Amino acid sequence: MERPRHQGMAKNTYMRWRLPLVCLLWEVAMIILFGVFVRFGPEADAHWEEEKQEMNVTSDIENDFYFRYPSFQDVHVMIFVGFGFLMMFLKRYGFGAVGFNFLLAAFGIQWALLMQGWFHSFKTGKILIGVENLINADFCVGSVCIAFGAILGKTSPIQLLVMTLFQVMLFAVNEYILLNLLHVKDAGGSMTIHTFGAYFGLTVTRILYRPNLEQSKDKQGSVYHSDLFAMIGTLYLWMYWPSFNSAISEHGDAQHRAAINTYCSLAACVLTTMAFSSMLQKKGKLDMVHIQNATLAGGVAVGTSAEMMLTPYGSLIVGFICGIVSTVGYVYLTPVLESRLHIQDTCGIHNLHGMPGLIGGIVGAITAAAATEDVYGKEGFIKAFDFTGSYKTWSPSVQGGFQAAGIVVSLVMAFAGGALVGKQEGSMERGVLSSACG
Amino acid sequence: MERPRHQGMAKNTYMRWRLPLVCLLWEVAMIILFGVFVRFGPEADAHWEEEKQEMNVTSDIENDFYFRYPSFQDVHVMIFVGFGFLMMFLKRYGFGAVGFNFLLAAFGIQWALLMQGWFHSFKTGKILIGVENLINADFCVGSVCIAFGAILGKTSPIQLLVMTLFQVMLFAVNEYILLNLLHVKDAGGSMTIHTFGAYFGLTVTRILYRPNLEQSKDKQGSVYHSDLFAMIGTLYLWMYWPSFNSAISEHGDAQHRAAINTYCSLAACVLTTMAFSSMLQKKGKLDMVHIQNATLAGGVAVGTSAEMMLTPYGSLIVGFICGIVSTVGYVYLTPVLESRLHIQDTCGIHNLHGMPGLIGGIVGAITAAAATEDVYGKEGFIKAFDFTGSYKTWSPSVQGGFQAAGIVVSLVMAFAGGALVGKQEGSMERGVLSSACG
Amino acid sequence: MERPRHQGMAKNTYMRWRLPLVCLLWEVAMIILFGVFVRFGPEADAHWEEEKQEMNVTSDIENDFYFRYPSFQDVHVMIFVGFGFLMMFLKRYGFGAVGFNFLLAAFGIQWALLMQGWFHSFKTGKILIGVENLINADFCVGSVCIAFGAILGKTSPIQLLVMTLFQVMLFAVNEYILLNLLHVKDAGGSMTIHTFGAYFGLTVTRILYRPNLEQSKDKQGSVYHSDLFAMIGTLYLWMYWPSFNSAISEHGDAQHRAAINTYCSLAACVLTTMAFSSMLQKKGKLDMVHIQNATLAGGVAVGTSAEMMLTPYGSLIVGFICGIVSTVGYVYLTPVLESRLHIQDTCGIHNLHGMPGLIGGIVGAITAAAATEDVYGKEGFIKAFDFTGSYKTWSPSVQGGFQAAGIVVSLVMAFAGGALVGKQEGSMERGVLSSACG
Repeated sequence: MERPRHQGMAKNTYMRWRLPLVCLLWEVAMIILFGVFVRFGPEADAHWEEEKQEMNVTSDIENDFYFRYPSFQDVHVMIFVGFGFLMMFLKRYGFGAVGFNFLLAAFGIQWALLMQGWFHSFKTGKILIGVENLINADFCVGSVCIAFGAILGKTSPIQLLVMTLFQVMLFAVNEYILLNLLHVKDAGGSMTIHTFGAYFGLTVTRILYRPNLEQSKDKQGSVYHSDLFAMIGTLYLWMYWPSFNSAISEHGDAQHRAAINTYCSLAACVLTTMAFSSMLQKKGKLDMVHIQNATLAGGVAVGTSAEMMLTPYGSLIVGFICGIVSTVGYVYLTPVLESRLHIQDTCGIHNLHGMPGLIGGIVGAITAAAATEDVYGKEGFIKAFDFTGSYKTWSPSVQGGFQAAGIVVSLVMAFAGGALVGKQEGSMERGVLSSACG
Repeated sequence: MERPRHQGMAKNTYMRWRLPLVCLLWEVAMIILFGVFVRFGPEADAHWEEEKQEMNVTSDIENDFYFRYPSFQDVHVMIFVGFGFLMMFLKRYGFGAVGFNFLLAAFGIQWALLMQGWFHSFKTGKILIGVENLINADFCVGSVCIAFGAILGKTSPIQLLVMTLFQVMLFAVNEYILLNLLHVKDAGGSMTIHTFGAYFGLTVTRILYRPNLEQSKDKQGSVYHSDLFAMIGTLYLWMYWPSFNSAISEHGDAQHRAAINTYCSLAACVLTTMAFSSMLQKKGKLDMVHIQNATLAGGVAVGTSAEMMLTPYGSLIVGFICGIVSTVGYVYLTPVLESRLHIQDTCGIHNLHGMPGLIGGIVGAITAAAATEDVYGKEGFIKAFDFTGSYKTWSPSVQGGFQAAGIVVSLVMAFAGGALVGKQEGSMERGVLSSACG
Repeated sequence: MERPRHQGMAKNTYMRWRLPLVCLLWEVAMIILFGVFVRFGPEADAHWEEEKQEMNVTSDIENDFYFRYPSFQDVHVMIFVGFGFLMMFLKRYGFGAVGFNFLLAAFGIQWALLMQGWFHSFKTGKILIGVENLINADFCVGSVCIAFGAILGKTSPIQLLVMTLFQVMLFAVNEYILLNLLHVKDAGGSMTIHTFGAYFGLTVTRILYRPNLEQSKDKQGSVYHSDLFAMIGTLYLWMYWPSFNSAISEHGDAQHRAAINTYCSLAACVLTTMAFSSMLQKKGKLDMVHIQNATLAGGVAVGTSAEMMLTPYGSLIVGFICGIVSTVGYVYLTPVLESRLHIQDTCGIHNLHGMPGLIGGIVGAITAAAATEDVYGKEGFIKAFDFTGSYKTWSPSVQGGFQAAGIVVSLVMAFAGGALVGKQEGSMERGVLSSACG
């Protein structure tokens, strides 16, 4: 049953041997590393039956699985369907977007389980995994999908895999610095996922700049149906974002609060996006690109603060601002970035993840600095910011300062890492071209 | 990165300033009202850590979030993907359906949080919200999406927003009369959502009747792919309807039962829809419109009774009947409504929500009236119908009577409200036309 | 509102009366049988309020509903959207795939509730159903959807319904033999769902072999957009497979573990599928058929063992192997099956469900046989394999042996049942043809 193959898939004849080899070798490496390091965490291990009794857990429902699995599945859909389909708007690149997104994400989650595991779940020589690790692996890959959005259509699958390899490593290091060394709160990843992913991708695309790409502008166009597929991606990202921002928050009120704040911020963001999209177009019509992207900025921008007492009206304000910033970015900033700075941002990730991610980091720092025992309650205050152990003496303003430091660290890591990986990708490309010509 | 804009979006040149202004002003109003009124409910507030101890809650999992969040996400998908894509079947209106549905729902949920909050969650001057409020806001907007189905293609986004503003208010009033004053049970909203939404929308479309709309019949056609997109909408509504009907039922057996009843009713409905669709077509072929719509009638019609002891076979009977009623409605009633009563029902909501909603109200009244302590158990009986406090002396037949009264109230509210809003919309339209010609 | 009808739906003029009659009669039969036999299980019955107290259940959250409902909804999406859209790749058969899948599944789940109920949930003359029964009914229908994939495009809706009727019965018998008589573990259904469904369908398609079908090869082609719709099916199957394999496992660690194992196996499978797809194509391009199908084989192949202590690296190994086996099957085996054995396997279910299902059965037998008290813990060991009552003395190797026997039984039932049903279908077809010519 042979079917015609599609244009979307790259025609690189070198793929024939290189892609299979890379995939197989890396998967073998994963198996070996998993064999040496990865085991089930206590709540997924058959020993839990005994451990439950020791820990006085009275019911099976108090397994972390039941707190987080529904959110995990929503996040999973966001990574594979949400990001995959959102990038499908390019006329000739539907398969590429979904297919390569599938490939890099499937590789990335395995590698992320290892990298994040070494930093966060390493006990007595083993990485012990549970549902929270699966969510974190998806999160990490999310930042790669974001970066992919900037270079969409410019790289081969191999280059994508190499980028994934390095970006996952750098993500894990950055996350470790922020969460463990700086004691930063960032459950929805405004800094670790969005800011890092966006500026990493933008740096890579800057280095891979090819001036003659502009000529093939007709390829960048969209058609009616590819826009409808992209709307599927948008809507699943929009609907499930409350799960994204609440997935790894503390059990109970924090998860509950994170979902409500995100819901509010996203709703407000839709209205200001529509308003500015209509206002900035010549004939008052709505631009599909804005609706597909800028409506999501509100979710990005409460990533850090959603689990805090941001309050519903605070969330509305954040969503209000981000819808405007993101839409204005698409209209005025993206063209300038390309013409002046030679940054070809295919999907406009700077408007959807870059600026809203920075805003999210700042909002988080302010919300943390403004926290009081009155608003959180005595115990809630300690629980929300984890002011225990060596952080017992921290004040909200100290926490706010460290949150701000987290933004800077994420930016530095993104620029440095992106430059490194971009150069690597560039040299791979030249290698391919020279051997192709030779 | 400019992309071609599509026909689906209205070309009204007045949109340029009016839509942005309306969106921005309303969003500012939302922020102010949320700032004054909306706060986190006890289970989403950081004080919960302390409150838990006072209320002797032993585990974080007993937060309402874990009882309702998975259902909430399913309902959320139904509103944004389900309704949005279901309406996509019109050839030239794919974007309009999804995009405007997105806009009105995003505005509607904020406004519904306020309106429903004032009626149901108002304590010491504040509206305290939690996951149940999010579900209720989605429900309220669901009734607006239903009404949108009747006027699809006939109104500008501004008119839709104005309709949303009024309909959400009337929905909240109607809901308050039913649930609080009449002590009616309607967890899945056969009356409050479907009957009210459908007859409201039909009244509006009657008033907006334009005879020359018939000429552009070719616009009303569908194409192969738009029908496949519509099937995505249908299937998500169909699959997640058990979550819809069980989302705000009492914890425990009531939620469990509501899901089972809805599952059964929907399954039966598919078979009778297919049977009558095939039987009533000239060549025995299946009509996609029926499959896309009538298969869902079974979910609508157990909206009131699903959480009661309707029993699985009772649900099958309801689904059996509704598949027939709905399909026959599409074949015979819709054309008559248009030619005789001048009601242009674009999506056929009378067949999917109107008649099944009425049936749902009646089935609910009968099921309530037929309840006995034997079937429910002594405590289950009291819990199921909330026969406590001033309702301690109510008998099932009294409950049944009040349920029936709820149907009448919903219809009256729908007709009166629809007439009011329809006239308002009509005058807006004339205003636009006259200024356009002037 | 009449819309053009599409080619996908069969044009059989005999459908006009036969399909409606069959649907209506069967639905009436369902109502009667449900009326006589089906009632709510204790956790969905209003008596639960009292039962809770007797059973010392302290919280409503310990209702099975909250353990399984999120997984149920994911499985539901897999059956209706996953299987429905996956089969949509055939150019002219989009509606047929989704529509007929919808019809057979809606009928099948009702019939499965009865058949499985008689075997597994029959107490004091009644079938008592809860959320686990809904999942099992969906599972049973899943095996019919698999078989449908082999005969897609060759049968009328009536033939499909007849096949569903018989296959559901045989499924229930086979499941009863395996789970109850042989004490086999198979929570994700490698044997009962995939092996049985695939070889059943292949036997049916062998008997329905029509040599001239090859000529209409252009009908078998796919187009760009139908491939994108198929990717929706693929991704939802891939993402929700962890829910599929964990849906009916024991509460707590077993569900948790099953999700993790499946997640790992699927991720590995994507990489080897991409590798071999690229390697075996002439120009190194990826074949969409492989990406749409073979990437899922890893989920099938851990169906039996996912809830056991397979460990994450064990899962990676299984996924690694299955991606290769399945892709190689599409390239080399499917053409041979058609040319030599006259088995026209439209969707290649032998590669996606047949071989991976067999591998899954074998992996399960080995994993069970290799179990030790050391790995599972004393109590976890007993709980995992249910070594209580008359199975108290069973050793892992005995369990492994019986697991292997389960594979053989499933195969025998599939071949025998498929032959029976295939002949029945063939005679129906001749009946239709002769009356059509007469």
